[in-house]
Amino acid sequence: MTHHGFCIWLTGLPSAGKTTIAKALTPKLKARGWNVELLDGDEVRTGLSADLGFDRKAREMHAARVTFVAKVLARNGVIPIVALISPYTSSRAKARQEIGRFVEVYVTTPLSVCEERDVKGLYKKARAGTIKEMTGIDDPYEMPEHPDITVETIEHNPDQSADYILLELEKKGWLPSASPSGHSGAPVGAKASAV
Amino acid sequence: MTHHGFCIWLTGLPSAGKTTIAKALTPKLKARGWNVELLDGDEVRTGLSADLGFDRKAREMHAARVTFVAKVLARNGVIPIVALISPYTSSRAKARQEIGRFVEVYVTTPLSVCEERDVKGLYKKARAGTIKEMTGIDDPYEMPEHPDITVETIEHNPDQSADYILLELEKKGWLPSASPSGHSGAPVGAKASAV
Repeated sequence: MTHHGFCIWLTGLPSAGKTTIAKALTPKLKARGWNVELLDGDEVRTGLSADLGFDRKAREMHAARVTFVAKVLARNGVIPIVALISPYTSSRAKARQEIGRFVEVYVTTPLSVCEERDVKGLYKKARAGTIKEMTGIDDPYEMPEHPDITVETIEHNPDQSADYILLELEKKGWLPSASPSGHSGAPVGAKASAV
Repeated sequence: MTHHGFCIWLTGLPSAGKTTIAKALTPKLKARGWNVELLDGDEVRTGLSADLGFDRKAREMHAARVTFVAKVLARNGVIPIVALISPYTSSRAKARQEIGRFVEVYVTTPLSVCEERDVKGLYKKARAGTIKEMTGIDDPYEMPEHPDITVETIEHNPDQSADYILLELEKKGWLPSASPSGHSGAPVGAKASAV
């Protein structure tokens, strides 16, 4: 018998903090006994979508492939954490439908702050016109209307955001509560997945 | 701590028996306590490679995507079973290199027998010229020169082939021996992966 994991899907503008929060979340879930796979949009492109560009069709196709991978991981007891701009409501809705156990986390950093951070220098390039199809500049970002969880990254650091997500997952009943005594909250009735 | 699974990669001509053997193998591994994901070439195309055709470049790209999925599954303690014609030595070599813990299983059914079985009616279509790029007919199949395991499907039924693969995996030390007393051979020191 295989028990299901679930997918944590982080959406938001470039430089919103998706990957940073995903990286803060990963060790916390591992410490609770879970297998976790971080599917970072940029990294996954290399393995899965090196052929794709950044127009609407390409972004949808990329999101669909990431969805497929997240789905097979989740149904094998793993927690895939997706960090992907995923600007289109339709792609996120499809991911939810396909994967089933799915939480949409909206990393809600405002454009001005993202542009100031500009982790990869993409906003600068987009403003200079040297790259096109930059989400937030000349490509749309369709804000989630009913995200399961919303985190903001101005008043909270990544560690706090990760803890907040864990708390929400506990409330949802998908994660056992971590007891104050420091109990790991490892899944009860855990099944073998490894030697 | 995540322990590694491993990938069982079945290669062979169309109608060689790859999917049938994979389906015989899956419940046997699950009964031993493993999470198993069958990545059947045709089915995975829908989720991952609907955009691709069957020329050399497309087949290589498809194999690379399947490799990516198998890799992330295996490193999360799952056993992906790939059933894919995978006609090119280079694709299989890349899969081995990427995934690491990898067994190549050559399903060695002769072309004449595959053509007689013609499970999907593809050989008939290829002979009639209504489809092109059919492996074994007008597209090459590069036989594995040093497969880890070779199974033949004329004298052995799928159940026997699956048992043979399990035995070889035990010899390799990747599966604990199933004891004659009926012990499941479940992995020792199994880690949590699920609730």
